[in-house]
Amino acid sequence: MAGNSFGNCFKLTTFGESHGVAIGGVIDGCPAGLTLDFDAIQSELNRRKPGQSEIVTQRKEPDTVEFLSGIFDNQTTGTPIGFMIKNANQKSKDYSHIKEVYRPSHADFTYEKKYGIRDYRGGGRSSARETACRVVAGAIAKQLLKDIKINAFTSSVGDIFIDKPYQELDFSKTESNIVRCPDQASAEKMIAKIKAIRKEGDTIGGTVTCVLKNVPIGLGEPVFDKLHAELGKAMLSINAVKGFEYGSGFCGARMKGSAHNDLFNEDGTTKTNLSGGIQGGISNGMDIYFRVAFKPVATIMQKQNTINKDGKIVEMQGKGRHDPCVVPRAIPIVEAMAALVLADYYLLNKMYN
Amino acid sequence: MAGNSFGNCFKLTTFGESHGVAIGGVIDGCPAGLTLDFDAIQSELNRRKPGQSEIVTQRKEPDTVEFLSGIFDNQTTGTPIGFMIKNANQKSKDYSHIKEVYRPSHADFTYEKKYGIRDYRGGGRSSARETACRVVAGAIAKQLLKDIKINAFTSSVGDIFIDKPYQELDFSKTESNIVRCPDQASAEKMIAKIKAIRKEGDTIGGTVTCVLKNVPIGLGEPVFDKLHAELGKAMLSINAVKGFEYGSGFCGARMKGSAHNDLFNEDGTTKTNLSGGIQGGISNGMDIYFRVAFKPVATIMQKQNTINKDGKIVEMQGKGRHDPCVVPRAIPIVEAMAALVLADYYLLNKMYN
Amino acid sequence: MAGNSFGNCFKLTTFGESHGVAIGGVIDGCPAGLTLDFDAIQSELNRRKPGQSEIVTQRKEPDTVEFLSGIFDNQTTGTPIGFMIKNANQKSKDYSHIKEVYRPSHADFTYEKKYGIRDYRGGGRSSARETACRVVAGAIAKQLLKDIKINAFTSSVGDIFIDKPYQELDFSKTESNIVRCPDQASAEKMIAKIKAIRKEGDTIGGTVTCVLKNVPIGLGEPVFDKLHAELGKAMLSINAVKGFEYGSGFCGARMKGSAHNDLFNEDGTTKTNLSGGIQGGISNGMDIYFRVAFKPVATIMQKQNTINKDGKIVEMQGKGRHDPCVVPRAIPIVEAMAALVLADYYLLNKMYN
Amino acid sequence: MAGNSFGNCFKLTTFGESHGVAIGGVIDGCPAGLTLDFDAIQSELNRRKPGQSEIVTQRKEPDTVEFLSGIFDNQTTGTPIGFMIKNANQKSKDYSHIKEVYRPSHADFTYEKKYGIRDYRGGGRSSARETACRVVAGAIAKQLLKDIKINAFTSSVGDIFIDKPYQELDFSKTESNIVRCPDQASAEKMIAKIKAIRKEGDTIGGTVTCVLKNVPIGLGEPVFDKLHAELGKAMLSINAVKGFEYGSGFCGARMKGSAHNDLFNEDGTTKTNLSGGIQGGISNGMDIYFRVAFKPVATIMQKQNTINKDGKIVEMQGKGRHDPCVVPRAIPIVEAMAALVLADYYLLNKMYN
Repeated sequence: MAGNSFGNCFKLTTFGESHGVAIGGVIDGCPAGLTLDFDAIQSELNRRKPGQSEIVTQRKEPDTVEFLSGIFDNQTTGTPIGFMIKNANQKSKDYSHIKEVYRPSHADFTYEKKYGIRDYRGGGRSSARETACRVVAGAIAKQLLKDIKINAFTSSVGDIFIDKPYQELDFSKTESNIVRCPDQASAEKMIAKIKAIRKEGDTIGGTVTCVLKNVPIGLGEPVFDKLHAELGKAMLSINAVKGFEYGSGFCGARMKGSAHNDLFNEDGTTKTNLSGGIQGGISNGMDIYFRVAFKPVATIMQKQNTINKDGKIVEMQGKGRHDPCVVPRAIPIVEAMAALVLADYYLLNKMYN
Repeated sequence: MAGNSFGNCFKLTTFGESHGVAIGGVIDGCPAGLTLDFDAIQSELNRRKPGQSEIVTQRKEPDTVEFLSGIFDNQTTGTPIGFMIKNANQKSKDYSHIKEVYRPSHADFTYEKKYGIRDYRGGGRSSARETACRVVAGAIAKQLLKDIKINAFTSSVGDIFIDKPYQELDFSKTESNIVRCPDQASAEKMIAKIKAIRKEGDTIGGTVTCVLKNVPIGLGEPVFDKLHAELGKAMLSINAVKGFEYGSGFCGARMKGSAHNDLFNEDGTTKTNLSGGIQGGISNGMDIYFRVAFKPVATIMQKQNTINKDGKIVEMQGKGRHDPCVVPRAIPIVEAMAALVLADYYLLNKMYN
Repeated sequence: MAGNSFGNCFKLTTFGESHGVAIGGVIDGCPAGLTLDFDAIQSELNRRKPGQSEIVTQRKEPDTVEFLSGIFDNQTTGTPIGFMIKNANQKSKDYSHIKEVYRPSHADFTYEKKYGIRDYRGGGRSSARETACRVVAGAIAKQLLKDIKINAFTSSVGDIFIDKPYQELDFSKTESNIVRCPDQASAEKMIAKIKAIRKEGDTIGGTVTCVLKNVPIGLGEPVFDKLHAELGKAMLSINAVKGFEYGSGFCGARMKGSAHNDLFNEDGTTKTNLSGGIQGGISNGMDIYFRVAFKPVATIMQKQNTINKDGKIVEMQGKGRHDPCVVPRAIPIVEAMAALVLADYYLLNKMYN
Repeated sequence: MAGNSFGNCFKLTTFGESHGVAIGGVIDGCPAGLTLDFDAIQSELNRRKPGQSEIVTQRKEPDTVEFLSGIFDNQTTGTPIGFMIKNANQKSKDYSHIKEVYRPSHADFTYEKKYGIRDYRGGGRSSARETACRVVAGAIAKQLLKDIKINAFTSSVGDIFIDKPYQELDFSKTESNIVRCPDQASAEKMIAKIKAIRKEGDTIGGTVTCVLKNVPIGLGEPVFDKLHAELGKAMLSINAVKGFEYGSGFCGARMKGSAHNDLFNEDGTTKTNLSGGIQGGISNGMDIYFRVAFKPVATIMQKQNTINKDGKIVEMQGKGRHDPCVVPRAIPIVEAMAALVLADYYLLNKMYN
C-alpha cells in the first residue's frame, strides 16, 4: 500500500534513505535451490555506482552489498533474502543548505506536504540511491531467468539519437564505452555532448531502449496486469522517467492498420514486430522492446531562484556531486526492473501450467 | 494475481467475455454514504457505446448497467457494488470464421498458447468490450472525487494533431463533435480522415491527452507506486495502447535541466509545469496531464494472409462491425482509468493523514 | 482491503446482500482447461440451502447459480468466472420491524456505526446468505483439487459430542442424516436436541470437525501464511464462528512434549498425528484435521429487550424463518472454505516447484 | 505470496534465520510524525529475550535492535522503517547433530520436502527467533495506537489454570512474576510446574489470554477480513500455536442463544460480552478478549527415536538451550501480533471515514 514493494511472486521491498545508516531490501519469493553468482550481482551494482567514469557524478560510494539471510551454502533456501548496502560516504553537510529550501523539480516540496517531515539529506528517500537495491534484486532475478537476455542501452542523449534499428546493434559493445551506447559513432557524440553540458553547469535528458530476448510465450496477465502495463509501471517508477513506449509506441499512433499488423509466419513467429513481442498483454515469443524517457537531472550547477519553507524567494546553486545525465547509470536500473517484472510473471505462469 | 483487479483501496474486479452471458464487475472499497447519480453513470457508458456516431462501429449494444448490490436508497453502503451489463446483441456467427484462425496483431495466438483454450467469439476476454466495466466503475469514482476534474480528449488521429497547448483548449467543447476533439478545426480534419480510412477498409491510430485538475497535493506513494507509474499502468492496460508520457514526456528527454526545471512561485505553485503536476511520484497541486498512444485497430476490412491452428497460411478478411479508429470511444475509458487511479490514491492518502 | 476477497492465486470476491437483487462472485485464477461438473456445484449449494430439512430454517430459496463468464464448452478458460444467485424469495417486510432496532448479538449496531448506513433487510451484507457464494467457489476448488478429500461433519450440538476419534467414523454416512453427523447414534440425539430447542423458541451452538485427506506434502507458506493460520482465518470468517483449533488444539496446551511429539516411521509418516498434518506451517502428508466452534444463532423466537437507534429500550421478538442451529448447514461452508485455502496453496506451490 | 509479510496498511515484512548474519524486517506504512520511544521498543524485546529468567532457555542473546531507515530526528518519516537484530551468540555447532536428522514435531521434514534445502542451524527460518522482529514492529504499532491497551498474560500452564474471569485480574501485576501470570497464587504453581517439567527433561504447553481495551468502534472488514479472523490468523502464525478462540469461544458452542445474546444498555454498551467485543467482524467498543493455545516445545532433553534423511531410524537427544514452556516468552509476541492487527485496521478505518 505505502508503495515500497514491487512484484507479487518475486517480491522486492526496499528501505533506506540516501544519507541514513543503510539502504537495503528483502526479496520474498525467490525459489529455493538457485546457486548465486555473487560477483555477477556486485558487477551489476558497479555499473550503477557513482564515480565510475568522467561523465557521471564523482561521489565515491563502494556500494558493497551484504546479504543477511535466505542463502545457505551459496544457494537460495526459499526464505526471504535480506540485504543491505551501508551508506559509507555521505557528505550530509553538503545538504544543510537545502534544509529549509525546496529545490525546483525535486521532491522536496511534495514530500514535505505529504508527510509533514522529510529527511532532506541528499533527497532522503526520494534519492535515486534507492535504485541500488533494485539492481541487487534485479541481478538475482536475471540469474533466475537465465535464458532470457535483457539488453538495455542508451539510445539518445539530448538530440543525439542512434539512427539504426536495434536489430543492427551489437549489444556486446554496450559496455565498451562510458555512455553505454552500442553504436560507437553515436556514443562518441553523446559523450562529447555530456561533457559540454557539464561544463555549462547544466544537465541533459536522454532515452534508454531495452530489448528482451528469449522471453517464453505466455507471460502476462490480462486484463489489468498486461505484461507491457507492468513493464511500463516498472520503468515509470524509476526516478526521472517521463515516458514509456513499447513496440511501435507513439509512432504506431500515426500508422494505418494495414501497415501496422504483424503478419504471421507458419511457425507462429511474425514477419514484422510492431507489436513489440506482446499481444493482448501476453508475450508472443518475439523480441520485446521498449523505450524509456529520462528528463534532465534537476540539480544544476547554475544559480536558480526558488522558495524556502516560509514561501520566500531565495537564490540557490546546486552543490554536491551530481550527474550531468542520468542515462548511463540508468542502464542497469532499467535492466533490473525488467528482470523483476519478468521474474514475477515467469513464476506466476508456472502456477497456471 | 490473475490480473482482473485494479486498485487496492477502491478496487475494481471485472469479468466477462464479449459474447458470453454478461460482462460485469465488483467495486470493493467505495466509501459508504455516497449518493449515486445513475444517469451520470449511464451517460459515461453511452460515450463508450458502439453505434453512437458514423465514425465508430455500427454494432448496436444497449450497454445498460444493472446494479446488483452495495446500494440502498440510492446510496452506497460500504459493501461491494456488484454490477453487470448483459450481452444483448452478440452476433456470434460473425466469428465462426476465426475459430481456427489467428488474426494478425490480435490476442488469438497468445491466449491460445497461454491457456490452451479460448473463447474465440468476438475476441472473448481480450475484447475491448471489457472496458465498459471500467467505465461504470470510473463513473462512480468520478462522483467520489467530485472536485477533481478529469478531461480527456482526442489530441491526434494519424498525422493530424491539435497544434495548441492544452491550456488554450475549451474542454466544454470536447463532446460537441463526434471525434471528441475540443479544437473544432482539428476535429473536422480528424473526422474526414477517419471516414477516408474507413472507406479504404483500413484503420488508423491516434493519441488521447488527459488533464486532471484540482488534484490535491500529496497523492502518490513513493517509490514503486508513484502516481504517474500507476497512471501509466492504468493507461497501458487499455486495449491497443502502445505508449504513455506525462508532463514533458519524451520531449523532456531532449531538454536541458536549466530549461526543464519548474521554478516556484511564492505560493508553492510553479511558473512552468514540465513536471506534469507530479514530483517524486507525488502530486504537487498543479495540473496533471499525460498522453496515451493508441495503435490502429487490428481488424481491417482488407484481405490479409494469416495462419490457422495447424500452422497453415490462410487468407482472411475482417468481418463484423469494427471501429476504424478507437480513439473517440477511448476517451471515456481513459477518463475512467484516471478516475480509478485517483480514487485509489485519494482513499489511501486519507489513511496516513 | 475492504475485505470481500479471499485468496491470492485462486481468489474469490463476493458481493450481495440478503435482500438485494442478487448475491454473486468472481473467481479469479482458476486454471484453464478444467471441465466443470455443474451438477456437483449445484449439489453443494443444495446442502447449504434453506428449507432442506425439518431442523433448519423453513425459508424457500431455490439458490440456483448462474454462471456469467469464464467458461466455454463447459471448460474453464483461465479468465474470471463470474456468477450470481438471484434473491428469489426475500420477504423484506419481515424485517421492517428491525429498521430502527439493533438486534442483540447481531451486526446491526456495528454496521450502523462503521458505515453510517445499513441495508437492514435480512441482515444485508452481514447475513450468512453471502456464504452461498463461497459454496459455489469451493465446489469449483474441490474439482480442481480432485484427489484431495475434504470431509466436514457435525461433531457436537450443545453438550452432545461424538465420543469417538474421527478415524473411527465412516464419512460416507455424513449425508445419511439431516444433522450431518456420521455417527448415527449421536446424530439422533443431536436432532432431538435441535427439535427441542426450536420448540423453546431458542437456538443452540455446536462444532464442526473437518478432515482433509491426501493433501500433498509442502503446502503452506511460513512464516505468516502458515497453512493452519490461513485455514483458521478462513473458518473464523464464517458467520457465528468463535473458535478454531487443529491437531491437538487446546488439549495440546495441557500436554507434555514427550507425549505430544509425533515420532516418525521410516517412510516419513508419523506414528501419531497430534501435529494435525501440519508442521512449521507446512503440510506433512498426514491427515489435516481441525475443529470449528459455532455460537448459537442470535435470532431467537423469545421476547428480548434491546435498543433502537435513539438509544431507547424496546422489546422485540424474532420474526422470519431462522435456523435453531447453524451447524447442519455450515458443513458445506466449512468444506468450501477449506477447499478455497487448499486451492490457493496448491497453485502457489506450483510456482516454486 | 511467499508468506513473509503481515498486514496491508501497516505492513511488516521479516527476514532472517536463527543462525544467519541477522534477522530483521521492514515496516511499510507507519504514518509520518510519530515520535518513537526507543526504550519502550527495546523493553518489549527484553520481555521476549532468552535468558531472562530461570524458567526460560539460558541462551544469551542481547537482541539489540538497530534501525536503518525511516526515522529522522526520532520521528517516523512515512518511509519504510528497516531494522535488524544481529545474531550474536549462535552456537551453530550445537546443531551439527541434526544436519541429517528430522526432529520429531519440528519443521525439519516439511522444510526439506518443500524447499529441497534447509538451513538446519537452530531451525533456520522456522525458529521462533523470527518473532523478535514481530516484537519490534508490534512495539511501534503500540505507540501508534497509544490509547488502546493490549494486555496478554499466561492463563494456563499444563493443567494449572487461573480460576477467575479476566475482569478480576490486575494486569499491572503481569510483569511481577517470571511466568507473566497476574494472579500470584496461580503464578507460583505454574512456576513450580515448569521447574519440575524441566527437571524431567520434558516440556509443557499452556495458554495465553489477551485483552484489548479501548478499541474504537468500527474496526474490522466484513466479510472475509473480519477483525477476529485476522486476529486468529495472526495468533496461529506464531510458532507452536494450535488454537484460537475469542469471546465465548468453544464454550459458546455449548450454549443456547437466550443465554449467549449480549443485551444492550441504552448507551450501546452491552450487559454481557460473550461476543468478545466483536459483532459481524467489527469491533463494538467492548473489551476484545481471546485465548491462544500453545503446544509443548518439541525439543525435549530425553532420548527419542527419529529418522534421518535416508529414512533410517536413529536415536537423538535434544541439545542446546531450550525453553521448557514457551508461554512466558510468548506474552510479548501475542501482544505484538495483536498490535499489528489493530494498527492495520486502525489505518484502514481512517480511509473510509
